[in-house]
Amino acid sequence: MSDSAVEVALFGAGRIGKIHAGNLVRQPGASLKYVVDVNPVFAEDLASKHGARVADARAVFDDPAVKAVVIGSSTDTHADLILQAAAAGKHIFCEKPVDLAIDRARACAQAVDRAGVRCLIGFQRRYDPTFAAVKARIDAGEIGTPEVLVVTSRDPGAPPVDYIRRSGGIFKDMLIHDFDIFRWILDDEAQTVYASGSCLTDPAIAEAGDIDTTAVTITTRQGRVCQINTSRRAAYGYDQRFEVMGSEGMLQAGNVRPTEVTAYGRKAVGTDLPEAFFLERYRAAYALEMAHFFEVVATGKPARTSVNDGLAALVLAEAAAKSLRERKPVHLGDAHDGKLTDVLAAVGAAAQ
Amino acid sequence: MSDSAVEVALFGAGRIGKIHAGNLVRQPGASLKYVVDVNPVFAEDLASKHGARVADARAVFDDPAVKAVVIGSSTDTHADLILQAAAAGKHIFCEKPVDLAIDRARACAQAVDRAGVRCLIGFQRRYDPTFAAVKARIDAGEIGTPEVLVVTSRDPGAPPVDYIRRSGGIFKDMLIHDFDIFRWILDDEAQTVYASGSCLTDPAIAEAGDIDTTAVTITTRQGRVCQINTSRRAAYGYDQRFEVMGSEGMLQAGNVRPTEVTAYGRKAVGTDLPEAFFLERYRAAYALEMAHFFEVVATGKPARTSVNDGLAALVLAEAAAKSLRERKPVHLGDAHDGKLTDVLAAVGAAAQ
Amino acid sequence: MSDSAVEVALFGAGRIGKIHAGNLVRQPGASLKYVVDVNPVFAEDLASKHGARVADARAVFDDPAVKAVVIGSSTDTHADLILQAAAAGKHIFCEKPVDLAIDRARACAQAVDRAGVRCLIGFQRRYDPTFAAVKARIDAGEIGTPEVLVVTSRDPGAPPVDYIRRSGGIFKDMLIHDFDIFRWILDDEAQTVYASGSCLTDPAIAEAGDIDTTAVTITTRQGRVCQINTSRRAAYGYDQRFEVMGSEGMLQAGNVRPTEVTAYGRKAVGTDLPEAFFLERYRAAYALEMAHFFEVVATGKPARTSVNDGLAALVLAEAAAKSLRERKPVHLGDAHDGKLTDVLAAVGAAAQ
Amino acid sequence: MSDSAVEVALFGAGRIGKIHAGNLVRQPGASLKYVVDVNPVFAEDLASKHGARVADARAVFDDPAVKAVVIGSSTDTHADLILQAAAAGKHIFCEKPVDLAIDRARACAQAVDRAGVRCLIGFQRRYDPTFAAVKARIDAGEIGTPEVLVVTSRDPGAPPVDYIRRSGGIFKDMLIHDFDIFRWILDDEAQTVYASGSCLTDPAIAEAGDIDTTAVTITTRQGRVCQINTSRRAAYGYDQRFEVMGSEGMLQAGNVRPTEVTAYGRKAVGTDLPEAFFLERYRAAYALEMAHFFEVVATGKPARTSVNDGLAALVLAEAAAKSLRERKPVHLGDAHDGKLTDVLAAVGAAAQ
Repeated sequence: MSDSAVEVALFGAGRIGKIHAGNLVRQPGASLKYVVDVNPVFAEDLASKHGARVADARAVFDDPAVKAVVIGSSTDTHADLILQAAAAGKHIFCEKPVDLAIDRARACAQAVDRAGVRCLIGFQRRYDPTFAAVKARIDAGEIGTPEVLVVTSRDPGAPPVDYIRRSGGIFKDMLIHDFDIFRWILDDEAQTVYASGSCLTDPAIAEAGDIDTTAVTITTRQGRVCQINTSRRAAYGYDQRFEVMGSEGMLQAGNVRPTEVTAYGRKAVGTDLPEAFFLERYRAAYALEMAHFFEVVATGKPARTSVNDGLAALVLAEAAAKSLRERKPVHLGDAHDGKLTDVLAAVGAAAQ
Repeated sequence: MSDSAVEVALFGAGRIGKIHAGNLVRQPGASLKYVVDVNPVFAEDLASKHGARVADARAVFDDPAVKAVVIGSSTDTHADLILQAAAAGKHIFCEKPVDLAIDRARACAQAVDRAGVRCLIGFQRRYDPTFAAVKARIDAGEIGTPEVLVVTSRDPGAPPVDYIRRSGGIFKDMLIHDFDIFRWILDDEAQTVYASGSCLTDPAIAEAGDIDTTAVTITTRQGRVCQINTSRRAAYGYDQRFEVMGSEGMLQAGNVRPTEVTAYGRKAVGTDLPEAFFLERYRAAYALEMAHFFEVVATGKPARTSVNDGLAALVLAEAAAKSLRERKPVHLGDAHDGKLTDVLAAVGAAAQ
Repeated sequence: MSDSAVEVALFGAGRIGKIHAGNLVRQPGASLKYVVDVNPVFAEDLASKHGARVADARAVFDDPAVKAVVIGSSTDTHADLILQAAAAGKHIFCEKPVDLAIDRARACAQAVDRAGVRCLIGFQRRYDPTFAAVKARIDAGEIGTPEVLVVTSRDPGAPPVDYIRRSGGIFKDMLIHDFDIFRWILDDEAQTVYASGSCLTDPAIAEAGDIDTTAVTITTRQGRVCQINTSRRAAYGYDQRFEVMGSEGMLQAGNVRPTEVTAYGRKAVGTDLPEAFFLERYRAAYALEMAHFFEVVATGKPARTSVNDGLAALVLAEAAAKSLRERKPVHLGDAHDGKLTDVLAAVGAAAQ
Repeated sequence: MSDSAVEVALFGAGRIGKIHAGNLVRQPGASLKYVVDVNPVFAEDLASKHGARVADARAVFDDPAVKAVVIGSSTDTHADLILQAAAAGKHIFCEKPVDLAIDRARACAQAVDRAGVRCLIGFQRRYDPTFAAVKARIDAGEIGTPEVLVVTSRDPGAPPVDYIRRSGGIFKDMLIHDFDIFRWILDDEAQTVYASGSCLTDPAIAEAGDIDTTAVTITTRQGRVCQINTSRRAAYGYDQRFEVMGSEGMLQAGNVRPTEVTAYGRKAVGTDLPEAFFLERYRAAYALEMAHFFEVVATGKPARTSVNDGLAALVLAEAAAKSLRERKPVHLGDAHDGKLTDVLAAVGAAAQ
């Protein structure tokens, strides 16, 4: 390892932790030094695979050689780890969401800002080649002014109800990604959020106080409209699409298929179902996201998906939940240059 | 002509009147006897082309040999002609909408009912081969229980502002078709309607008190959700799609293209834009719709798109307009077997 | 009927005759006067449907009011009827092939030429909107100089062996269309024809002396190449595609589907199979072909698919059969402006 | 590095060598020990990147710790290196073609056989996920008995004429892959090969004695047919497709695109061009191919693309060249269990 290697600690040795570890060790000049997990077996397995050591959080934050941390542990640990990492002056890669509570997420954002470290939130979809190509083509003017965004986001099946109970609800757990897509693609902030939805796939989800099917409408401060439709269960798999119409044309981001086989049978012409789930669908996105993180660490330039983006998506999720509860649209402000504090106030968070 | 020929009068010799005339004369046993139009030149041209006579409305309704009328004249004449035709005992084919006012549309429905005639409203999309195939496959159980409907409906360009002023607004003029699609495909009635929208394509439309871009969300009494997005102007043409997800799969109704040419050039792989506008896109639908009308006349069986369907779509349009005005969802009732009177009351129409 | 109506006689009241009759009576100014068929019941049914009279060939050719004939009777009657029609000065629309024998086909071409009448051969594929769009775009220069043509032409199932015995063989019966596509799309003549093939679907076809699967390669005088693959039986239906690569790009003519439904199921994403067979697939082509015939009759301009095209395709079919028999390529001449007589000589027909 | 690491030497540090090196070092338990290249700078760059040493061939073959070699050097070195590697008892991964001369390729096959080592030839297309899925579905019986194979294989542009002069001609240089696809997909051997072609893209290619556009037809011993069309230059990029029709259906292997963006513009609906060239198109294939090689090394099981496959493809290339030269089909034998010696004799190679 050369002197200039960036030593990194990874929190979380589960499914997503393994993905991040694999991508991390492929970055030129990156070195995975520590793996931290509440489950020592998981930690040891992943550490040994990549020549790293098992450690606890204290050791990580006390080691001045560690320049950056990757947080892939459970959601309830995110905020604490971000705060500690910021305090220790380490750059941060953290899975979404920042936290389930706006207050805590905002505190994270402030801590990151004060510490002068970079904090990338894992909205990996922005790094997906198809989605990123749509964004680049919009920015290049191909469809003129964006006007209408339609997002379709469906999981192949609902997670266990136990997970759902701790998830913060469908808006914070699942649509958080779609809210980020909205902000990124339309490059605008929400004026109103209206959410409706149902529990159609499993009554146990309703008993847990959640829904599994949503229809969200966002109008923006520049008069654009966005419709998001989601479901926890699509019989045909993982469905991740959006389309954006502008004054000069439309761009659609379609599903990705495992192969390009077309089969002509006696009843139909068939092609592959979409990639099975997020680990497959966003494989390239996870790799590009990690590469971007190390570019951010190396250059100090802002992350494309910052902690403020994490906070803003959370505000939309909170607003959607409130809209569903109160059965009416939630107003988030009119200013074209809407500040985050306005937005926070609108959803009832204490302003500072 | 045989004794059993069905003699028909056509009101309206404009663009849509010509389409209907052409389809009408191809029906076995149908005979176009009269053409009525405020413009005598138009009337004469169309009548002579098909061997018919120019007449006024009085002559049509007084001629006992006329069994059916086709109404393709301007919207403000629909209700009067329906009432007169019903009074004269003639079967009716009438373009949408029945009327811009719910009271008058309801009066038409009642008159048709009392007279015991059939009244087909021209929701031609239900007769489109692609759309009808989706419906048939849903009915055959292919996707289990329908849960989510997403309708995309975009015109290639806005009509003149003069037209827009008289149109009754985008919901009654344009989305009336989409509301009918919603009722037909989900086979359910609206519980709530929420509409938002903007004027993005031409400030003159806003000055006329209308919008050109809408995002409508309907929740149904069985908990299903429908999102409709529309625009008066899609740079790439006429965009008419919907997709319905059910518990067992999804069906998409895509655009129809003039040809199946695929072109590989230096920059992209290109296919045709969708059919240019409704006359081209729904050519087959118009022919099948007319054939259905003559089947209805011959057999007495109910029309697939009845005057009650016309009334119900109008109620949704009115509710959408109210929602947009009041910036909140409009509640249309909860009963799974919601009666039309409930629905009418919900949008402030006088109940009878 | 106006004085200027073009009175027409139709030979053949079978499947294709009915199609032509239906298209014929829709042409402005056309009048179906006679129907001729060896089966009097068929003739009477079709005649009465369109207000025509049953007649025999003599009556047709003796009636000076008949300006044109449409020949849709069996292949063995084509040449006689063409010769008689030409002698009687009537314009001719004749189904392919002109005849199974080159000598007789050539005699027809000469008779038509001498009589100064027009003779359109029913290569309906040239009138198909998708195929015609490809040709128009090539002519407009979109792909530069055409270089490689790949034609895929498969039937949903083999006809009865009795039919195959009388058919003249797969090259004259089935590939005759593909040979015409070749000449039309590449706008060039064959220098060599090489055919191989097999009997794979039904041994009875081999017993009848024919094959059911072919692979034909044609090189042209300008050095272009064409590959044709055909089968009498595609399990998934009627497959009619071609693609042409040029120096600047490629154009593909794809199959046409009954609807634009896409179905996402548990195993695959499915779309419709192609239109079932030629009557469905080429419905629009048959109508446009007939319209073109009446334009030819009215204006005297050359038919887009002339009797010489019929003869040239037959020469290719004969060459392909010879190549298969002799297991080597057949040379048809080198001259860039290859005359038909050269071509005829090359396949062993007596030159005149 | 653990004791069980497989130490490997790489010959060739050019474009393809770098690809193989990158994939090689990712294999669990594999270690790149030496890099050999005539250009010392290239060798040093690649070696240092992967922690390997620069060496000459002698050192590699003399080092008993080297278990396997990867040969990605120029074609004229392949046979010598294979012979030396076999003599030294090392497993071999060698880029196609084995050699330009059948005699030498056969000698390689014999040497490999005698030495009892494994020799994988780099027909990477067999490892492509889309192509491999087609093969697996055929093997699973999805389309019944395969009958017709159509292969389209086009490069984005011709290589320099200097390269073409040394390439052995288009059949050995480019179609060698397509011949392997043919044998693999139809699981049958050629009975006859007929090749035609032209020089259409650059007269300098003709001056070098080669062509740039080919149309090859292969008939198999079981009566199946295969058509291959190739071009050195497709204006729209790298086009790699095939389709195979069987008695029960058809499977198509389509191009792979960089993204799944669909763009609706004012003139067309556009999607991405195919992946630019083989390094991009077959990125996954190269990785899977290398993984297979190490599986072969570890388990001793036969390589999916063996030196005999390399020899058999070369025989087809030689036959195609002969067919083109002599302007007639070349017969390669009839036996359903055709032995390689028969095949060699058929193309004029000295039998042993």
